[in-house]
Amino acid sequence: MSDRTTDPVPRRLTEWEQRTEVPLFAASLLFLLGYAVRVLSPHGSEPWRDIALALVAATWSAFVVDYGVRLRLSGQGRRFARTHWLDTLVLLLPLLRPLRVVRVYSAVQKRREQPRLSLYARVIVYAGLTSVLLGFSAALAVYQQEHGAPGASIRTFGDAVWWACATLTTVGYGDAVPVTPVGRLIAALLMACGLALLGAVTGSFSSWLLQVFSREDEKGPPASG
Amino acid sequence: MSDRTTDPVPRRLTEWEQRTEVPLFAASLLFLLGYAVRVLSPHGSEPWRDIALALVAATWSAFVVDYGVRLRLSGQGRRFARTHWLDTLVLLLPLLRPLRVVRVYSAVQKRREQPRLSLYARVIVYAGLTSVLLGFSAALAVYQQEHGAPGASIRTFGDAVWWACATLTTVGYGDAVPVTPVGRLIAALLMACGLALLGAVTGSFSSWLLQVFSREDEKGPPASG
Amino acid sequence: MSDRTTDPVPRRLTEWEQRTEVPLFAASLLFLLGYAVRVLSPHGSEPWRDIALALVAATWSAFVVDYGVRLRLSGQGRRFARTHWLDTLVLLLPLLRPLRVVRVYSAVQKRREQPRLSLYARVIVYAGLTSVLLGFSAALAVYQQEHGAPGASIRTFGDAVWWACATLTTVGYGDAVPVTPVGRLIAALLMACGLALLGAVTGSFSSWLLQVFSREDEKGPPASG
Amino acid sequence: MSDRTTDPVPRRLTEWEQRTEVPLFAASLLFLLGYAVRVLSPHGSEPWRDIALALVAATWSAFVVDYGVRLRLSGQGRRFARTHWLDTLVLLLPLLRPLRVVRVYSAVQKRREQPRLSLYARVIVYAGLTSVLLGFSAALAVYQQEHGAPGASIRTFGDAVWWACATLTTVGYGDAVPVTPVGRLIAALLMACGLALLGAVTGSFSSWLLQVFSREDEKGPPASG
Repeated sequence: MSDRTTDPVPRRLTEWEQRTEVPLFAASLLFLLGYAVRVLSPHGSEPWRDIALALVAATWSAFVVDYGVRLRLSGQGRRFARTHWLDTLVLLLPLLRPLRVVRVYSAVQKRREQPRLSLYARVIVYAGLTSVLLGFSAALAVYQQEHGAPGASIRTFGDAVWWACATLTTVGYGDAVPVTPVGRLIAALLMACGLALLGAVTGSFSSWLLQVFSREDEKGPPASG
Repeated sequence: MSDRTTDPVPRRLTEWEQRTEVPLFAASLLFLLGYAVRVLSPHGSEPWRDIALALVAATWSAFVVDYGVRLRLSGQGRRFARTHWLDTLVLLLPLLRPLRVVRVYSAVQKRREQPRLSLYARVIVYAGLTSVLLGFSAALAVYQQEHGAPGASIRTFGDAVWWACATLTTVGYGDAVPVTPVGRLIAALLMACGLALLGAVTGSFSSWLLQVFSREDEKGPPASG
Repeated sequence: MSDRTTDPVPRRLTEWEQRTEVPLFAASLLFLLGYAVRVLSPHGSEPWRDIALALVAATWSAFVVDYGVRLRLSGQGRRFARTHWLDTLVLLLPLLRPLRVVRVYSAVQKRREQPRLSLYARVIVYAGLTSVLLGFSAALAVYQQEHGAPGASIRTFGDAVWWACATLTTVGYGDAVPVTPVGRLIAALLMACGLALLGAVTGSFSSWLLQVFSREDEKGPPASG
Repeated sequence: MSDRTTDPVPRRLTEWEQRTEVPLFAASLLFLLGYAVRVLSPHGSEPWRDIALALVAATWSAFVVDYGVRLRLSGQGRRFARTHWLDTLVLLLPLLRPLRVVRVYSAVQKRREQPRLSLYARVIVYAGLTSVLLGFSAALAVYQQEHGAPGASIRTFGDAVWWACATLTTVGYGDAVPVTPVGRLIAALLMACGLALLGAVTGSFSSWLLQVFSREDEKGPPASG
């Protein structure tokens, strides 16, 4: 989607990206964990809430440092923010980090040297996993916004997760719906991302099924081959 | 999706699987029948309810025995549970057995030596049939969970089937919605599976239609060919 | 989807089908018109209601005669009902006749010898038109079932059309929903057909858009070609 | 979709279209702005409302003039209205102008001579942008129709935007729904267009993801190539 693949990327930037990919993914999981603890723990359970806040702050700083290093190594100056708009967006809204999972997946895959999954299976795993992480992030953020709002139908975190499922799959029962402007903004983001990601899951599954069934044909009676 | 196709599968395992495919499918239909009778018959109609329970227990045992035999014949030990994760999941949640229908279909097809359906038609038939069986299983399970819950909107089995239709097709009217945590978990599973399966139906139908229309072109005036 | 294309079809059957295609399509539109007048006109406007009933009866008889003739000409006896299951179904439920529109389209096209639409445009036109006719039929049938039911949310024909739109597109607001068993059965049929047909529209539109944009590439600067 | 590409298009018409494309797009954005101000500003803020009305009238006149000039230059007379049915429709319902964005995109692209986006990215950008503009137009029109209707659930412009999001993505919660006939007509149009456009976004994203993952394969260990 970006021009990155065609640009001559400095070798040191590539090395940096390969080395930091997995630690940064761990950091983003810690960020999500910290955010979840902060949002879900009741007021009063103070030591944990403070630790969670510190975790969120620390991991966010790590993202900022990584962005700064890559900006310098790229030697592009301001153009970097525009050509890497997804990274810039993810820096500002770390809950969108799951969208970068695709890089981590291939990085991990390379190290383990395992027999790789088939193309369709990989797309399904990647898009499915990203959907789950995004859905969880959205459920947390919507719960934080909505659970105290007057007239809210999302009152518990369970409601928020249920709402996220119904939204990601575009079922949309309407029994749990955000009512605040910020909650609705998050919902609109989730709809847009979720639609594309689950479309990828559906499309790949469909292609995979067609492949399985047509392979079966080839194994059939030799007369037909 | 699994590595099974590339693994060297022991011949005896293949034979076992080919022979047991159809009996096991019959067993899974009996399982569903027993479960349906157990869930839908009112308390008091005792002899039938007990027979249904026995049927459920007997068919489940058959699945356990089959899994055990295949685990031994594969000679893989514990790795079997991981490489055959779908089978392991189906063993624990027999209501998901419809997901294995694809095997039965080809097994039956081979025996009857009928003129086969076209590729797209087979995918549509397989994915459509699986959706119907999964929807029916989910309707039963949700009805069992919900019909006595306070504030439930799914009160009759008819409501549950209606809910399953609206969920599988992602229409999601919201007039009948699960309210208990377990009911919502089943619903989320149904959404995920249903989305992928119906996406396969839709995609194949679309491809089939394009094929029909483009074949028509070839039959057209010879000047264009 | 059926084996018809591979069967040796008697020449007289083919001729009969080509000749009756357009008159039968006109008859099915008349059937729909008669049914609409019968359902929508208030009790009391007697002469019109009787004419409508006669129209429905007459067109249905035409379908029965056509089916009988084709059954004889095919020389297949009972097998005909099975190999032509869609025709048999349409005979029993004439509101499903729009599903046969595809034949009419090509028949008309052949006669007019017009410059044909592109492949994708034809699929979009066909699937879109069929959706509209099926949606209208379903709205009529659901209105007939629901408008007098206790607790119904579909009270006017406008509500029924609105419900059909929301169902065909899988939006499913839930503000107008069938509540009777028969109404829900019709809704489930509409969901199943609509999902597949609109999936075909969406898929073809998507392919067409990709084609337009990639053709544009070829017209681009000669250096890239 | 139209025959325009195969017709011998007069050179002067092509020139006119290339020159007016961008100004007309600017005019359509001004039209939308004027309409938005007219609809959203409260009664009483008179000078602005009048300016907005003048803007709407002026831009509409520009569209009429452009249509007239193209009708003359084409030399087709009345046939023009039929072969350019989308243009004719857009003339009558200027809120549908976003559907012509595709032309503007390529016109702008040609002038700037930038490195072009990949095929899938362009389809995603085009279809996504068109969806956003259509959704905004529909939200404005529905808000105008609904906000004063008795029993309306769309009372603020925020509600209308929220409704447009839920409709375009086919989530359809049903918490904000048009209740007037005109509002429902606009909704049906939005559903039809939105379904096709977002289907294109989803399909292209899915194809792009498959491309990214399969390119990765090629970069893999040389033994597999």
